[in-house]
Amino acid sequence: MKKFLLLMILCGSILGAQTEDEKQLRLIYDQALEKGKSYDWLKYLSNRIGGRLSGSVQAQQAVDYTKDQLDGLGLDRVWLQPVMVPKWVRGLPEFAYMETSPGVTTDMPICALGGSVGTTGRGIKANVIEVQSIEELKTLGKEKISGKIVFFNRPMDPALINTFEAYSGAVDQRGRGAAEAGKYEALGVIVRSMNLRLDDYPHAGGMNYGDIPDSEKVPAAAISTNAADLLSTTIRLKPDTQFFFKLNCKQLEDVESFNVIGEIKGSTYPDEIMLVGGHLDSWDLGDGSHDDGAGCVQSMEVLRILKAINYKPKRTLRVVLFMNEENGLRGGKKYAELAKNKNENHVFALESDSGGFTPRGFSFDTSEANLKQAQGWAKLFEPYYINLFVKGYSGADINPLKQEGIVLAGLRPDSQRYFDHHHAESDTFEHVNRRELELGAAAMTSLVYLYDTYGVKASK
Amino acid sequence: MKKFLLLMILCGSILGAQTEDEKQLRLIYDQALEKGKSYDWLKYLSNRIGGRLSGSVQAQQAVDYTKDQLDGLGLDRVWLQPVMVPKWVRGLPEFAYMETSPGVTTDMPICALGGSVGTTGRGIKANVIEVQSIEELKTLGKEKISGKIVFFNRPMDPALINTFEAYSGAVDQRGRGAAEAGKYEALGVIVRSMNLRLDDYPHAGGMNYGDIPDSEKVPAAAISTNAADLLSTTIRLKPDTQFFFKLNCKQLEDVESFNVIGEIKGSTYPDEIMLVGGHLDSWDLGDGSHDDGAGCVQSMEVLRILKAINYKPKRTLRVVLFMNEENGLRGGKKYAELAKNKNENHVFALESDSGGFTPRGFSFDTSEANLKQAQGWAKLFEPYYINLFVKGYSGADINPLKQEGIVLAGLRPDSQRYFDHHHAESDTFEHVNRRELELGAAAMTSLVYLYDTYGVKASK
Repeated sequence: MKKFLLLMILCGSILGAQTEDEKQLRLIYDQALEKGKSYDWLKYLSNRIGGRLSGSVQAQQAVDYTKDQLDGLGLDRVWLQPVMVPKWVRGLPEFAYMETSPGVTTDMPICALGGSVGTTGRGIKANVIEVQSIEELKTLGKEKISGKIVFFNRPMDPALINTFEAYSGAVDQRGRGAAEAGKYEALGVIVRSMNLRLDDYPHAGGMNYGDIPDSEKVPAAAISTNAADLLSTTIRLKPDTQFFFKLNCKQLEDVESFNVIGEIKGSTYPDEIMLVGGHLDSWDLGDGSHDDGAGCVQSMEVLRILKAINYKPKRTLRVVLFMNEENGLRGGKKYAELAKNKNENHVFALESDSGGFTPRGFSFDTSEANLKQAQGWAKLFEPYYINLFVKGYSGADINPLKQEGIVLAGLRPDSQRYFDHHHAESDTFEHVNRRELELGAAAMTSLVYLYDTYGVKASK
Repeated sequence: MKKFLLLMILCGSILGAQTEDEKQLRLIYDQALEKGKSYDWLKYLSNRIGGRLSGSVQAQQAVDYTKDQLDGLGLDRVWLQPVMVPKWVRGLPEFAYMETSPGVTTDMPICALGGSVGTTGRGIKANVIEVQSIEELKTLGKEKISGKIVFFNRPMDPALINTFEAYSGAVDQRGRGAAEAGKYEALGVIVRSMNLRLDDYPHAGGMNYGDIPDSEKVPAAAISTNAADLLSTTIRLKPDTQFFFKLNCKQLEDVESFNVIGEIKGSTYPDEIMLVGGHLDSWDLGDGSHDDGAGCVQSMEVLRILKAINYKPKRTLRVVLFMNEENGLRGGKKYAELAKNKNENHVFALESDSGGFTPRGFSFDTSEANLKQAQGWAKLFEPYYINLFVKGYSGADINPLKQEGIVLAGLRPDSQRYFDHHHAESDTFEHVNRRELELGAAAMTSLVYLYDTYGVKASK
């Protein structure tokens, strides 16, 4: 761009007579961008602690660290909510190769899927049968599948603009593939990583055996997209190619962990609870910066910003860092269960769990009337390039709070880069841009401010 | 994100009866995302050629390569338009340090600004005077400035959401700082890099001495943001700190270079020309991936996509890869001059020169009537998350075409990461995301398709 010719004013917010809401949003954004803390918090979580798989030492360190940081914010109350979580361990090393002729092998980047059983003995070696879908398993039947390794290789659809839709359209292979393939006596399952990019990272993620008996449980792992393409081409050229993989993963006994919670008591309607949150656990391969360290530090930042600009909420604002979203959702379920037992009145909950990228807006899982109320605030967000106010999914951790009248909302960042890093070794701090992260926190804070100021239109 | 719970449909494009325009846009996006060529072209430009400073071997290689690629697209005509360009050379090595006590030095990442004279002899060593603005120079006067190195250290404003506004607000220091400081007998000028991030990269960029005599021309260079903070703190603690820098840069004779042009002849209105373009030259420190390799390959992709989906334009479509935007704008000026001489009727021109990031929309430098026409297409772009149709600057290279009736437009990508890399060693291929780049090309193609189909509302 040329030096003197940059006179564009895209923002369009000609500052004339500002309304109180406009002023508050500006204060919120200034605070986030000039004095933000979220990036420093994330740096610690990512670089000093790292991947935070439920039940791990790192997950406990993250509980301690975030509680400590919340303690320092001068909130009215900070506490830990105990919850029993599953403890699945990867048990390195895990490895794989394909063997095109006896002794001629090519290593393949692989990782066990969360919840998978390990391979017994020395690992599994067998011929590969590639399928594009779970339905195709049925067509092939036991005759073609028995004794083989099933290779699920349907890519995420690149033509879908919202990459979460592409993920939804492919992730059944990872989630249910092994349970289904086991029924046809497959020896194991490998899945093309849920990644739109061609690279060498295997992407972890949860899988589920459903109700099948232990004897039918076969090990399941993901291979990188490059490895998937290579394997697919190879077995077309040489159908007797064998694939070997060894996983040492194991499901241990449940252990105790915690949701980390902080709150500012409401001045006028203390019994109306507004929640912001993300999940503190992550997969273990990367450091969980985007999924979901970003959502945690943004949620903490919401309360910090409101205190910093000296805003006194009418309603009770609560930040919740949920444990175990990735492989159990125990934190979200426990929180909702206790909220119900205590008869707490949650009027609003907002989750950030789609990465720390430039925010585009929010999706709302609520009534039409409540959606309309939010859309009525769109103009206020225009100077900040926030323009998505749509009906849609909120977040896994807050979903158990769903009931009539409540507004469940999800932050919707730009989704293009998310699945490059999602659940992979490359979900690391250097892939988070400070401003993008901070803009997300500011957008969340602004929405919370507006709901606190005006209340939920059509609550119960 | 949890596996089975991703049922959000943000896109909102319920496919019912599609209009012809909706169908065409879908075809365009499918082509860009499934069979796009822009990323591969950029990979070659960035990784096989590299930084393309006007007059350099690499700039000529880029001319040859892109002409060759356009030749392969089966356009009606591809040609080179000669243009004389300035040849400024950096002349490595260049280096700098600060010296807090005799012999106690700290190296500082530095780069000469484009157009600067070199330091004579062994380099310049002097005390430093920090200023926040050109105005401050006047207040200080010759007495305080004479014999010193002036250090312009006003940061880009982080509170501005559109980072190009923050750039506009700070870049006068880089562009005019040396010319102004020379008037007060400064020995040299160093400028805080135009970068919102704190890091160790000095950012190049053009500067201009205006009409001042050669004897008043002092060397000008940028230091990294980290170095600027360090230097600022150091001279506050120890005002007699000295700064040393040595630049070997030089302005040589102008040399011949080229704009690279390809076109598809219009079927119905061949005399109405619609232009898409970017600039082929770049600064030399990185490989010019975002600035502006991205804009070049996106512009080439516009014509490729339209041919691939078998669209026959009514108007003549021209891709222009301009030479020398960065330090002279000779390509853009020459193109406009020749267009005028030949009485060519340009009705529309679109430039991409703001990085290959997720596109948010377009800014239009045109009449209100023409802007309204574009805004009338906003609904068509909604499924693709394009929602910015605003009045504003288009692009430096197409700006000389400005006249009554023409629509000048600029692609507006997300701006948050742009200045992390702009003109720096880190403007490299790995910082471009394939999908973000391709979405930009698709948005551009869609706009071109619509203007070709409906014509410009209020042309001359």
